Amino acid sequence: MTTTPLRTAVVIGCGITGTSVALALTGAGVEVALIDRDPKAAAEAAALGAGTPWTPGRPPADLVVVATPPSAVVDVLYTAQARALGHVYTDTAGTKDIISADAELRGCDLKGYVPGHPLAGLDAPGRAAAGPGRFTGRPWVLCPYETTPDRALETVAALVELCGAVRRDMTPEAHDRAVAVLSHLPYLVAAVLAAGLAEVGPELLALGGDELAAVVAAAGADPVLGGDLLTQNAGPVADAVGRAVGELGAAARTLHEGADTAPVELGLLLERGRQGHAALAQTCELRTPQDARTGGRV
Amino acid sequence: MTTTPLRTAVVIGCGITGTSVALALTGAGVEVALIDRDPKAAAEAAALGAGTPWTPGRPPADLVVVATPPSAVVDVLYTAQARALGHVYTDTAGTKDIISADAELRGCDLKGYVPGHPLAGLDAPGRAAAGPGRFTGRPWVLCPYETTPDRALETVAALVELCGAVRRDMTPEAHDRAVAVLSHLPYLVAAVLAAGLAEVGPELLALGGDELAAVVAAAGADPVLGGDLLTQNAGPVADAVGRAVGELGAAARTLHEGADTAPVELGLLLERGRQGHAALAQTCELRTPQDARTGGRV
Repeated sequence: MTTTPLRTAVVIGCGITGTSVALALTGAGVEVALIDRDPKAAAEAAALGAGTPWTPGRPPADLVVVATPPSAVVDVLYTAQARALGHVYTDTAGTKDIISADAELRGCDLKGYVPGHPLAGLDAPGRAAAGPGRFTGRPWVLCPYETTPDRALETVAALVELCGAVRRDMTPEAHDRAVAVLSHLPYLVAAVLAAGLAEVGPELLALGGDELAAVVAAAGADPVLGGDLLTQNAGPVADAVGRAVGELGAAARTLHEGADTAPVELGLLLERGRQGHAALAQTCELRTPQDARTGGRV
Repeated sequence: MTTTPLRTAVVIGCGITGTSVALALTGAGVEVALIDRDPKAAAEAAALGAGTPWTPGRPPADLVVVATPPSAVVDVLYTAQARALGHVYTDTAGTKDIISADAELRGCDLKGYVPGHPLAGLDAPGRAAAGPGRFTGRPWVLCPYETTPDRALETVAALVELCGAVRRDMTPEAHDRAVAVLSHLPYLVAAVLAAGLAEVGPELLALGGDELAAVVAAAGADPVLGGDLLTQNAGPVADAVGRAVGELGAAARTLHEGADTAPVELGLLLERGRQGHAALAQTCELRTPQDARTGGRV
């Protein structure tokens, strides 16, 4: 751990992400003040050891982390900057393109704001799974503006480092296209598959087993946050869904028509899937801890 | 373990399922003879301790297990019965309706054949994951004909018991509709998601993480066997795919239109998914070992 310009922080939003960030920072010796529009949530996070509820009259913190749902980020950021809660700001929302553009349109101070996204999986409702190790070894995307000063970027980089995450810099557009395919489409598909289980009686559900549970695990996420997330990445998600619908529709037609070539036609799709599976497996093996300190634009 | 009428068996098809069945039977003291259209495969399974390669002139075995891909089962069954390889026959294919009907049409001896399906997840290519514990605690569906004699059913029930699996009796139609939703659709969806990863570069794939790996895990299965499996359950799979395509298409339209109500509309779908996820989680918790000796029709 290097010397960082990060001694005090404000975390706004005490859900699983904000609470986990606050726990990691508190554990690293940073003085953390907690804000939530529900004071009880801030008190509960404080009781977990995530910091102390914010009180007025404090000097600006080194860093303010906006950990609200995506659609609330720009409003909260604007207000926090107007109230001078900190010197540098970041957010943790799972979408970046609309937020980055809206922050500029709204007149937020871009010199002090670095959009960010720690990728720790979809959030279950509540703070039950919060913990200081939630981001350890996980990618944490930063989408600095071209005009972002080094000092602001260094402060947010210190946050990523204190959380033990792997910094990845990229453009908001590249981030959103990637997470649409890697996270948002799989989430939507998991929800559709899980919703379809209603037509299977409980006796037969037991035939599903652990493989099915793994496939639909994402469907356990908070549906309100999920609806917000998908809408804030509407274009890339709609494109990804459209492609999946096209592939599935073609498979359904092949099955309906029942030609002798059906097994081979389906086999070709399944083989492309096997290759994508192999590529993912290889990439995951290649992601070693030595990546943890690099932040090259990808 | 009760006294069983199962002292000798022939296993036809030395892939992961046949080899695992043979290893479990051999481990339970059953004398197992192995057949594969590729003699090298039978020799390799024998080298793993799964039994000995079959040789002509043996007396009929107590049980013959046909562990070939679904489309080959009826031909292999018919030939094996014509050659009197055993007294009782079963198969392990992942589809049951077409096979059960075709066996009758083809003139197989239905008095000595009990269609079956051990549900141990989709098969990776090869025998690498074969093992005697592959079916321990897993459901093993039997689809006896109305005319199946008790003696034949008892012999196949002994196989299920020796493999440590949980017997479930049901009709071929109920089986196929259930596995279409619980297994075949998730498999096809995993393949489509994994195939879509090709459009994401290797640098960005690392953002996917363990959740994505779990969702697309099934896409690593053997595509040739997979194409055969889906085609042999074409009707129910096409129905399940059609329903999923309808839900996904509606979500894509909601995202494209971008109305203010989009987060709520998507949230309603996601909430149905969360409920299906919760129902599955509850069912999996309810599946306790005490179910292992019951075989009531569900």
